[in-house]
Amino acid sequence: MKPDESRVVYQGRLLGMTVERWGDHEREIVEHPGAVAIVAVDADGWVTLVRQVREATRGELLELPAGTREPGEEPVATAKRELREECGLTGGEWSELAPFWTTPGFCRERMTVFAAEGVEPSGPASPEADEQLEPVRIRLEELERRLGEIEDAKTLVGLLLYLRRSTSTEP
Amino acid sequence: MKPDESRVVYQGRLLGMTVERWGDHEREIVEHPGAVAIVAVDADGWVTLVRQVREATRGELLELPAGTREPGEEPVATAKRELREECGLTGGEWSELAPFWTTPGFCRERMTVFAAEGVEPSGPASPEADEQLEPVRIRLEELERRLGEIEDAKTLVGLLLYLRRSTSTEP
Repeated sequence: MKPDESRVVYQGRLLGMTVERWGDHEREIVEHPGAVAIVAVDADGWVTLVRQVREATRGELLELPAGTREPGEEPVATAKRELREECGLTGGEWSELAPFWTTPGFCRERMTVFAAEGVEPSGPASPEADEQLEPVRIRLEELERRLGEIEDAKTLVGLLLYLRRSTSTEP
Repeated sequence: MKPDESRVVYQGRLLGMTVERWGDHEREIVEHPGAVAIVAVDADGWVTLVRQVREATRGELLELPAGTREPGEEPVATAKRELREECGLTGGEWSELAPFWTTPGFCRERMTVFAAEGVEPSGPASPEADEQLEPVRIRLEELERRLGEIEDAKTLVGLLLYLRRSTSTEP
């Protein structure tokens, strides 16, 4: 399926905006390169999240480490790079928890959430110059109780799917 | 907290784009009025989802009934209106499952997901002229098995939180 007409109305540094005509209606669509997020757990059962300034929300949020894909980069490569940069973590057994659209009504962002189990320190974190974030470690057994603090969609999806998988594979 | 400078670079029908300067970095931020979604369950244990054409994804997705807030409208009022329009359902006991940001890195969309339990038919659905959607009824017991079909973030959050709440309140 493809639109009858399409015009770019804004092209920025990370985002773009396209207006598409489909028959007799128009859609405004945000162009986005796609992103990844990681549920990273070490061998002792600590999960690493990040507390991050989110200008769009005028506050700080507790989120999974995450990042935007570079052109041509496979999602798992983005995820490993971001986990090293944001949290100083490497290694572990990787699996895909879910691929999904973050806001399919108006945006082309496709998100993949991974689980990385058994991660290890790789050295100091080195976030981008424009990122203000701080790693926060939480015990796996505490996650369930702390879900009410989470106000970010990808983080809710990732933690809920990970907890569900952990529970269902227990003997 | 507020930006040092802010300029509107696009103003459309539903969306806008603002570029904000915070110290020495800039953020592109999508302006959005906020939205709601509903986990609607009837007295016989059927959950109503919608299968919907999503132009941005070039395909159809299976999602919770949902919609965008009108100016000045309370989230629960938007939710009741959308459930009637998209699915022809009314009534029920309403509760909030979670409020969250859909994509806090670049967008001002705040989402509230509700549970509506014991909903009843209100008459034929009357979706907007530019919406192509079809209600899909699924047994509550089937939801868990069908989560792999869901590729929409708010739907994953809503169903996972609802299933978790249902399970934890069982005797």
